[in-house]
Amino acid sequence: MDCIFCKIVAGQIPCHKLYEDARTLAFLDIGPVSRGHALVLPRAHAVMLDELGADDATAIGQALVKVGRAIVRAVGAEAWNVLQNNGEMAGQLVPHVHFHIVPRFNGDGFSYRWNPRKLSDDDAAALKDAIARELGSRQ
Amino acid sequence: MDCIFCKIVAGQIPCHKLYEDARTLAFLDIGPVSRGHALVLPRAHAVMLDELGADDATAIGQALVKVGRAIVRAVGAEAWNVLQNNGEMAGQLVPHVHFHIVPRFNGDGFSYRWNPRKLSDDDAAALKDAIARELGSRQ
Repeated sequence: MDCIFCKIVAGQIPCHKLYEDARTLAFLDIGPVSRGHALVLPRAHAVMLDELGADDATAIGQALVKVGRAIVRAVGAEAWNVLQNNGEMAGQLVPHVHFHIVPRFNGDGFSYRWNPRKLSDDDAAALKDAIARELGSRQ
Repeated sequence: MDCIFCKIVAGQIPCHKLYEDARTLAFLDIGPVSRGHALVLPRAHAVMLDELGADDATAIGQALVKVGRAIVRAVGAEAWNVLQNNGEMAGQLVPHVHFHIVPRFNGDGFSYRWNPRKLSDDDAAALKDAIARELGSRQ
């Protein structure tokens, strides 16, 4: 497996480690968009978040809150973002699931473009049906 | 409590509900930035993610994966983002923790500005120390 994050998990490539448990690892991003910018990821290889098993989903939820809280307190940030990208079109650069924790400060240069539309009742009904079918098929 | 998401959780304001369990709720965003854009949130009121207790952190991790997977399959998206904003400076509009699930399509108009710096060894060491102190105080 030629995955840079799997190599970091295995200790073959160094990182600035912040936290680890049986299923997750967190380390500083070496190209931070703000002070304290870090990544939280499952040790097990998965490309996208929808591939995660239930145990890793639990562990990631726990680690996000625990590590996020420690980082924002440590850097004194009053605001922060969590960003997680699945697929190249979504901005994913390393094909191993990872969550960005981004503490926010005035003038940090991080922003996103939000272009909301209006949700029609017809489309809402169609979406609810289609999503319910998918949830039913997995539960 | 004058929180719009608490009112949705309580059934006092309608929503296009996609999923619910004992601790979480998911519904369609009424101002979608792409088809299938939805919110996943804890039923219990908390403003920021760092305020979540361990049980809600677990439930949110589970719900994100389960609902995200169902949505991207239902809308046929090959890429998707998770975005979660804590605090006004981070773009949080409703002060009740919520994760955006954003399926991605060509030309959807969603993007973010990423302005990476270089992490110095000195700052990495200082950050690791400060974050380790915070983690130690909570574990």
